[in-house]
Amino acid sequence: MTVDLYHGEPASNSLKVLQAIHEKGVPFTSHYINLMKFEQHAPAYVAINPAGQVPTLVHDGRVLTESTVINEYIDDAFDGPPLKPADPYLQGQMRIWTKYVDEVFRPSLSFLAWHRVIPGMAKALPEGEFEARLKRIPLKEKRDKWELAAKGGFSERELEGWRANLEDVSDRVESALAGHDWLVGGMFTLADIAVFAMAVSMPRSYPDLWNETHTPQAMAWMARMKARPGVAAALAMPDHTGMVSRKD
Amino acid sequence: MTVDLYHGEPASNSLKVLQAIHEKGVPFTSHYINLMKFEQHAPAYVAINPAGQVPTLVHDGRVLTESTVINEYIDDAFDGPPLKPADPYLQGQMRIWTKYVDEVFRPSLSFLAWHRVIPGMAKALPEGEFEARLKRIPLKEKRDKWELAAKGGFSERELEGWRANLEDVSDRVESALAGHDWLVGGMFTLADIAVFAMAVSMPRSYPDLWNETHTPQAMAWMARMKARPGVAAALAMPDHTGMVSRKD
Repeated sequence: MTVDLYHGEPASNSLKVLQAIHEKGVPFTSHYINLMKFEQHAPAYVAINPAGQVPTLVHDGRVLTESTVINEYIDDAFDGPPLKPADPYLQGQMRIWTKYVDEVFRPSLSFLAWHRVIPGMAKALPEGEFEARLKRIPLKEKRDKWELAAKGGFSERELEGWRANLEDVSDRVESALAGHDWLVGGMFTLADIAVFAMAVSMPRSYPDLWNETHTPQAMAWMARMKARPGVAAALAMPDHTGMVSRKD
Repeated sequence: MTVDLYHGEPASNSLKVLQAIHEKGVPFTSHYINLMKFEQHAPAYVAINPAGQVPTLVHDGRVLTESTVINEYIDDAFDGPPLKPADPYLQGQMRIWTKYVDEVFRPSLSFLAWHRVIPGMAKALPEGEFEARLKRIPLKEKRDKWELAAKGGFSERELEGWRANLEDVSDRVESALAGHDWLVGGMFTLADIAVFAMAVSMPRSYPDLWNETHTPQAMAWMARMKARPGVAAALAMPDHTGMVSRKD
């Protein structure tokens, strides 16, 4: 059996899959893709994942993309502790969380980060280099969004919407954890993994929203997450971008 | 056993769940919610689904929301023909489609429809009535989007992005069906159900993108879908909005 995982630093969607694969105890070969060098858009990687996105899992030659889909696959295809509740109703509740991360939490967090980071990154590159890198982004929609972010072109309405979403996320996570150690069904599941992959950066990036006073349950849950050997192993994976603070 | 399904006319996310429940052969009580009368935001319905969205499934008192989550649940929780492939890898491929419908196809189609329909709808109502209805929308993000749509306030960039997405959808569906009767794994699955729920309106709404010349495989697949008794039963469900053309 061969399992190859292509991933960036232990953050966002890469962290999501790294947690699942470590928690499940699946032996795998790690292939680090440096996002700050745009390696996800390099021809060798695009040959594996035409969308030029991380992560990608290759299991015995079969290619899987989309972190949420990969995580369900890791739980279904390999031995190890279950990462989904057995009850279909609780599986549904778990999927409402993973879907909410994909549709609300992750994009809101990413676009706000792009808005902050990309203009400076574009300016720091030698002339013409940012444009050259843009051209290598396979998906037009993504390419357009990067270009727009570089110009600081997101509208105030969009930025406000994403900020409001992050408030909604904080409230939902906090109330879901009241009286519960984990988000769904009294067990650690792919819901905790998906939310944590994004939430881990919140206390540093949005200290007004995530802190001991405002979200005590969420902070305690994050400590429980970090104490898990699988999650800790995922967080300890290489980061050559400097984007992940080891102190988070 | 009691199964109650709250749904709108057989289109979009309501059609998605109606297809699954009919194909699976689950006996259920239908509760029709008239979206043109904003019944999805009425207090009695919001008590069941706080987001004020259709559809909602209530099975023996347990409430499920989100059509994609409901459809996986219908397949897992009830007897009847399987609507997912047995192989986890093919399940993953199926989920890439259902996710793509949720994140790209459905929103692009909906926002373009809002852009066309809502300004006229708002003007046709007695003074103050549209504003009164807006106030009943539970989710701020949704409320803001309706308000914006009513003013014709989507940006040209957003409109162009959604139109480009619909082209991408057409190309993907057409090439996935080349040499195949169904989208994934040689069997009818929740992927076909999810794509069809949106695609059914394409030949009428976007005849330049979906037609016998440009997308012959997709058109032939749509005919195969409509010939299935479960899908036909779903399409025959009540529509008091006049939004669904019976000739589609």
